[in-house]
Amino acid sequence: MARVTVMGAGDMGTALVTPLAHNGHEVRLWGTERDSAIIEALRAGNPHPRLGIPVPAGVQTFKSEEKAVAFQDAEVVIVAITSDSVRAVLNWLGHDLGHPDLIVTVAKGFDGGPDGHDVQLLPATIIEFKTAPVVAVGGPSKANEVARGTPTAVVFGSLDAKALSFARMVFASPVYRIEPSADITGLEVAAAMKNAYAIALGIADGLEERTGLPHHNLRAALFPRAIAEMGALARTFGGRAETVFGLAGTGDLQVTVTSGRNRLLGERIGYGDSPDDAVGALAAGGTTVEGYRAADFGYRFYRQAVEVGSLAGASLPLLDALWQILYRDAKPAATLWRAV
Amino acid sequence: MARVTVMGAGDMGTALVTPLAHNGHEVRLWGTERDSAIIEALRAGNPHPRLGIPVPAGVQTFKSEEKAVAFQDAEVVIVAITSDSVRAVLNWLGHDLGHPDLIVTVAKGFDGGPDGHDVQLLPATIIEFKTAPVVAVGGPSKANEVARGTPTAVVFGSLDAKALSFARMVFASPVYRIEPSADITGLEVAAAMKNAYAIALGIADGLEERTGLPHHNLRAALFPRAIAEMGALARTFGGRAETVFGLAGTGDLQVTVTSGRNRLLGERIGYGDSPDDAVGALAAGGTTVEGYRAADFGYRFYRQAVEVGSLAGASLPLLDALWQILYRDAKPAATLWRAV
Repeated sequence: MARVTVMGAGDMGTALVTPLAHNGHEVRLWGTERDSAIIEALRAGNPHPRLGIPVPAGVQTFKSEEKAVAFQDAEVVIVAITSDSVRAVLNWLGHDLGHPDLIVTVAKGFDGGPDGHDVQLLPATIIEFKTAPVVAVGGPSKANEVARGTPTAVVFGSLDAKALSFARMVFASPVYRIEPSADITGLEVAAAMKNAYAIALGIADGLEERTGLPHHNLRAALFPRAIAEMGALARTFGGRAETVFGLAGTGDLQVTVTSGRNRLLGERIGYGDSPDDAVGALAAGGTTVEGYRAADFGYRFYRQAVEVGSLAGASLPLLDALWQILYRDAKPAATLWRAV
Repeated sequence: MARVTVMGAGDMGTALVTPLAHNGHEVRLWGTERDSAIIEALRAGNPHPRLGIPVPAGVQTFKSEEKAVAFQDAEVVIVAITSDSVRAVLNWLGHDLGHPDLIVTVAKGFDGGPDGHDVQLLPATIIEFKTAPVVAVGGPSKANEVARGTPTAVVFGSLDAKALSFARMVFASPVYRIEPSADITGLEVAAAMKNAYAIALGIADGLEERTGLPHHNLRAALFPRAIAEMGALARTFGGRAETVFGLAGTGDLQVTVTSGRNRLLGERIGYGDSPDDAVGALAAGGTTVEGYRAADFGYRFYRQAVEVGSLAGASLPLLDALWQILYRDAKPAATLWRAV
């Protein structure tokens, strides 16, 4: 049994309480400032506002300002906040984060580095603040299903074999299966970029809405292209394309294009909304679209790689098309079709 | 301009008339015995009963018994009938098939060979009857979209480079893009087996119906497993796994699990129907579920490959699970979950 603190009471942070509580750990759920209403609801025994179920009995909940108690003597800390707030939250937590033996991150995406101009993977950001072994989580994992305990198979990746094996022991359950991987880089690239590519596939759904004609063939044609490009990006970052071909890439993209905010952003753009309007409307509803930011990070990284010649001849026409659509108002249908 | 005869007035055969007519060919659409009502409808200027649109002006239609005229002097013949009727129809056509310069097959699946006990790919069956270059078609290609001219990207595969280039010239249009491939074997294995694996993924949809809980994580976890196994099967047949990773495998599986009869069969089984009942109900409605037969062919081929040691260490737990569910009444949920 371990003392585990989950950082972030959003969908995924709260969902992970299910396997952790099932395994008999002492589980604490800490909400950031934007999670205050959630923590209040859970404390009152009410369901999580988005997941629709309460947390299991025995799980302690903490509000943002109770950070010192929430993280005290935690052996395992789970980073479950949006990628764009990881740096700020870790900074704010400071010494209160304590000295965990293990940090597990379900936050997915890139970070701009200390000066905001770099492109780095989140584990690199985490270890700027805390020198503990980091395990990253990838694979198809809708939070509402993890919370309800329907079968879920994920990948845990780490360079630290001992930490990996500890993390698996803490989390694995009969309905939460964990495939270990040493390729944390490939896993993180897939976890971040699948959100970006899901926007591209969502655009095909929006074209259906706009024209009244299904565009399933187009959407399906974009899928293997997305996988191939994520594989090329993973290799360029120093990871393995094979990681992308498995649960972490192909599996996660498959579930991500089924539903969710990234797909929805694409759908709005395919329907005819401008990217700015569509992103704005989702942001006004409190929804962070991780893929929008990931597309820009991925594109910048890609352009840098082309300049220094490290892309080994690979070209990424779909990422290019997506970026032109999102950030340069290129016409969605024609631009995507050229990238197939 | 070429004289082209489409063999089979089902959804895909009729849909292909759209790019062919767009390209100005002399197009003839020949229906098998089971297509009589379709041909009558099209002749009367009515829409195709399933596709919902009429054929373009100038397309000639022929009923089964008009076979001699339908195939006379055809330079290109397109095989667009279900895989289980290819042998019988070619046999019945006999000399009336004429001497085409090129045979293009969109029929997907396996055949039992002359004595019914083998496992062979359809191009091998076609050349038993007619020694002409064969080009096979794969990739995500819903017939209703091809018929309406929404963007579709496919793979044409052939060992004969000249035939491949002729076929591309005949078919390619601004909305029907063709990627050439020399790996007709990998393409055919993917085209056939994606129907089988779509049943497995459909079972996850049925579990949702039965339990009221989405099983998207399970379905997504099965997806990369299916791709990996199709890749191993392609290699064992003498094809390339890379073909499976592209449009012909990953792309086609993605669209096949979105809708269609194979997914539907899985859904019924996941919901709780016995495989026999589910197959029977679909057959009574006039629906051939290609994947049901492909799962058995694929499984037999797999077992043979294991016996002769040609599978190079690969194991196919998902195909095994699917076969046990379809043909040995194994419990769907638990059996699938073990195969992830």
